[in-house]
Amino acid sequence: TYFVFNFFKPTFMNGLIFDYQLTIPTILRRAETFFGHKEIVSRLPDRNLHRTNYGECAVRARKLALALQRLGIRPGDRVGTFCWNHSQHLEIYLGVPSFCAVLHTLNLRLAADDLIYIVNHGGDRAIIVDEVLLPLFEKFRSQIKKVEFIIVIPNGSGQIPAGMLDYEKLLAAEDATKFKYSEFDENLAAAMCYTSGTTGKPKGVLYSHRAITLHSMASGMTTVLGVGESDTVLPVVPMFHVNAWGLPFTCAMVGAKLVFPGPFLDPTSLLELYESEKVTFTAGVPTIWFGILQLLDKEPRKYNLQSLRTLLVGGSAAPKAMIQGFQERHNLRVVHAWGMTETAPLGSVANLTSELLDAPAAAQYDFRAKQGIPAPFVEIRARSDQGFIPWDGISMGELEVRGPWIASHYYNTNEMEERFTPDGWFCTGDIVSINSKGCIQIQDRSKDVIKSGGEWISSVALESMLMSHPSVLEAAVIAIAHPKWGERPLAAVVLKENKTATPQELIDFLRPHFDKTWMPDAVEFVKAIPRTGVGKFQKTVLREQFKDYKLG
Amino acid sequence: TYFVFNFFKPTFMNGLIFDYQLTIPTILRRAETFFGHKEIVSRLPDRNLHRTNYGECAVRARKLALALQRLGIRPGDRVGTFCWNHSQHLEIYLGVPSFCAVLHTLNLRLAADDLIYIVNHGGDRAIIVDEVLLPLFEKFRSQIKKVEFIIVIPNGSGQIPAGMLDYEKLLAAEDATKFKYSEFDENLAAAMCYTSGTTGKPKGVLYSHRAITLHSMASGMTTVLGVGESDTVLPVVPMFHVNAWGLPFTCAMVGAKLVFPGPFLDPTSLLELYESEKVTFTAGVPTIWFGILQLLDKEPRKYNLQSLRTLLVGGSAAPKAMIQGFQERHNLRVVHAWGMTETAPLGSVANLTSELLDAPAAAQYDFRAKQGIPAPFVEIRARSDQGFIPWDGISMGELEVRGPWIASHYYNTNEMEERFTPDGWFCTGDIVSINSKGCIQIQDRSKDVIKSGGEWISSVALESMLMSHPSVLEAAVIAIAHPKWGERPLAAVVLKENKTATPQELIDFLRPHFDKTWMPDAVEFVKAIPRTGVGKFQKTVLREQFKDYKLG
Repeated sequence: TYFVFNFFKPTFMNGLIFDYQLTIPTILRRAETFFGHKEIVSRLPDRNLHRTNYGECAVRARKLALALQRLGIRPGDRVGTFCWNHSQHLEIYLGVPSFCAVLHTLNLRLAADDLIYIVNHGGDRAIIVDEVLLPLFEKFRSQIKKVEFIIVIPNGSGQIPAGMLDYEKLLAAEDATKFKYSEFDENLAAAMCYTSGTTGKPKGVLYSHRAITLHSMASGMTTVLGVGESDTVLPVVPMFHVNAWGLPFTCAMVGAKLVFPGPFLDPTSLLELYESEKVTFTAGVPTIWFGILQLLDKEPRKYNLQSLRTLLVGGSAAPKAMIQGFQERHNLRVVHAWGMTETAPLGSVANLTSELLDAPAAAQYDFRAKQGIPAPFVEIRARSDQGFIPWDGISMGELEVRGPWIASHYYNTNEMEERFTPDGWFCTGDIVSINSKGCIQIQDRSKDVIKSGGEWISSVALESMLMSHPSVLEAAVIAIAHPKWGERPLAAVVLKENKTATPQELIDFLRPHFDKTWMPDAVEFVKAIPRTGVGKFQKTVLREQFKDYKLG
Repeated sequence: TYFVFNFFKPTFMNGLIFDYQLTIPTILRRAETFFGHKEIVSRLPDRNLHRTNYGECAVRARKLALALQRLGIRPGDRVGTFCWNHSQHLEIYLGVPSFCAVLHTLNLRLAADDLIYIVNHGGDRAIIVDEVLLPLFEKFRSQIKKVEFIIVIPNGSGQIPAGMLDYEKLLAAEDATKFKYSEFDENLAAAMCYTSGTTGKPKGVLYSHRAITLHSMASGMTTVLGVGESDTVLPVVPMFHVNAWGLPFTCAMVGAKLVFPGPFLDPTSLLELYESEKVTFTAGVPTIWFGILQLLDKEPRKYNLQSLRTLLVGGSAAPKAMIQGFQERHNLRVVHAWGMTETAPLGSVANLTSELLDAPAAAQYDFRAKQGIPAPFVEIRARSDQGFIPWDGISMGELEVRGPWIASHYYNTNEMEERFTPDGWFCTGDIVSINSKGCIQIQDRSKDVIKSGGEWISSVALESMLMSHPSVLEAAVIAIAHPKWGERPLAAVVLKENKTATPQELIDFLRPHFDKTWMPDAVEFVKAIPRTGVGKFQKTVLREQFKDYKLG
């Protein structure tokens, strides 16, 4: 609470407005009341499609809440999930916070050690697991001893192991009409996600009901993602990764049809669903779109994707060449967004602004490959060694953000508190430039930027340009120790199948676009760029690989 | 604050999210930071166009805040406005709440007695008046003795009367960089509007910063109004009428270009602006659109309105024939919304739902003439003498609403407290039916519905059908006392110029569409339907006129 005008305090007036708390149950109730008939489609592990709707989903979410309460799960208790994207996961998204328990999605792709740490540190009392993921789950189950209930969604053979509970049987035993909506403070925790940080232990972010609700409203705004009732949304981004960028909550709020791909994230499976379900909006990391673009280029007329209005890309920077490839060769619009686990995750979106609507294609692509304008109420600034940077589109600094869905602390740890400034901003670790109209361009991660003789060189800019070379499939640029300059860039490049290029050719290709001090000192061809569990370049591994590299 | 799970209290967890209060200053800051270059166009009283932008507007808003503080205006103090729609009024909208003073818009069209009551009851310490409106203002100025400062916007001759302050001089004396943004509680009051109720004294509604901010976010959602950065918005609805439906705040939040019509609300002036400024979105009451449709029908190819995507209509029910006329004869999309002063005002919008996108035109028009689906977080129910009505699209009851921008009380009065239910819902006074998908259709105002032998007859439905008759310009249906049935309907009809119709013809026209018990017992031709200051049918006057009418 704020009383900054203390000396004037007696004159303050409260608004006379109904005290309506913004909570997940209000989203659940809205989905059921107004969009009960709208479809939710899931691809099952046997590849068949399962169809339900928000009405049935809401009934089952309330049954789940009752079943969990019957087991003794209380408000504030954490309920983990270890699941693919499907309609039951949506029920859990809406059902667990419906009585103010905390949804804790576990990332299938993390190493067992990380998962053990996360489950134990998060303090999960129950975990809901896909039957088809039990083999993966068993790898660390023995080390999460405090978890009292393992609940299995029978989506395999249906044989639930001894000592575990059957999700469907739990629900079948409940009468949804017995559930009573309670009102509670919107600042209470609704969901928890751990960052898959490449350094140190994973850190927990604890989203309030208010944060998720406002984030969902923003996602429905025309100037942000514009997800609406007539959209059909397929989140490729997993529900175990930053709440699938909040899309399940957004779709439930606005009544959009949802299509869940289950375990099948290969290009063919996705393209089939886009076509058959008339998907309008889909979201995922660049790796997913690389694969899809390659397949579309091979079979350009195989799929009818007329309905598809937006492919949202985030998680790491998408090269302009990819955005351009989709647009020019397949008339598909890739929209770039930026965010992090700590930002719930929506920070900014690169929707073309009105001035650019009639601009030449090149200017449009330049803008669309940036990270765009912050969502409403996300405030930004960036800081270099010399203080806050000017918004000139050139100066680089670390991006700091604040807003109503930005983390203020990590859960139950004192580590990394330096990422939260004393005046309440979160330090993102992203090195950016900001132009005069507030458009963010990520230049690098702070740990990846190459510090060469007092100047910062953007590894991302070099990579993006390299990846627009016709022979290059992927490229990662890393810092190599240099006796004189401190650090110098080395480019690790993966060539496309049946394509060739020499290091000199690639350097010559870069030369017109950058200052000569930015030219990589070496180009090395590799078979693949190592990636993290969530598909990002794992430059730590690459740096390790080249740590003894001697620059000439 | 809610502690409904008291018995579980120890387990509660707070989210760990930055405490970001949703206030008007955050909107002001966002408009300046990201949309400083976006244009704001105003038609001046001399008909010239004045051009500024959000950057200049924000600077002036901060100067205004400083000037008001210098006069001694404190947080919580009310600052009245008596102005047309123009860029200074926008500065006041953003500047007064920027330091938590309360914007109090005064409705130019009210009777002097009402204005005197409203200014005195609201307790305005200052009033900002358009110079061109001083003659109107002088009619009641002598009776608002507690107002300490009269500030005049010099938009006429520039001669400021003695005892009044010059708005431009006040601003010129301030240095905007001296303004410091303060953080304060989002539940504090930002703005005040009085209802122009036809019965009893006007009632004050006090909007919190939170209410206006959430309302603005909702207005930017695709499924609500979808106002975005690339829109150019012309609010015909006056800024002295429920904050011009919140559009000035919404536009500032999303960075939409704004076009203000000043005092010129005639069809020709508006159509000229739509064309010259490439307006995409405009909003007003049905009367405005009647006039524009008539002019377009006369001169169908005169104006290029290709940019215009939406004509939002609200305030009272728009007849289907009008919506259809715009669409079919001019390819213009009229979108129906419902709201009230007490709902800030956005309650519901009739955007076509996905099922209707491919429906026959007739089904689409049927839907589009209804009031639509509630905005996110607006919850609805309706109650008849027999309790809550079923959502069958037929049963009629009084609509009740609740939500984060719905009033909880009137300001400083105990009158009409019965409109707020003990469980926190606002009784709208609108008689509606609700269909199975939650679509609201207003059947009547509770004071206008005709209660005939235990059955309710919708005056609005009869009026709407009458107005689709080719000879009818306007029609109002009122209740006439009847010895046997209690009340029976009488239709007062205004014929179009050079058109004729007999009462029997009109009754025969209605017959196929309604039960025979609904047929008006009489049709009377009148020269005009009396209207309120805000352009609504004034049925009280009509009822007075026909109070001794004897039904045959």
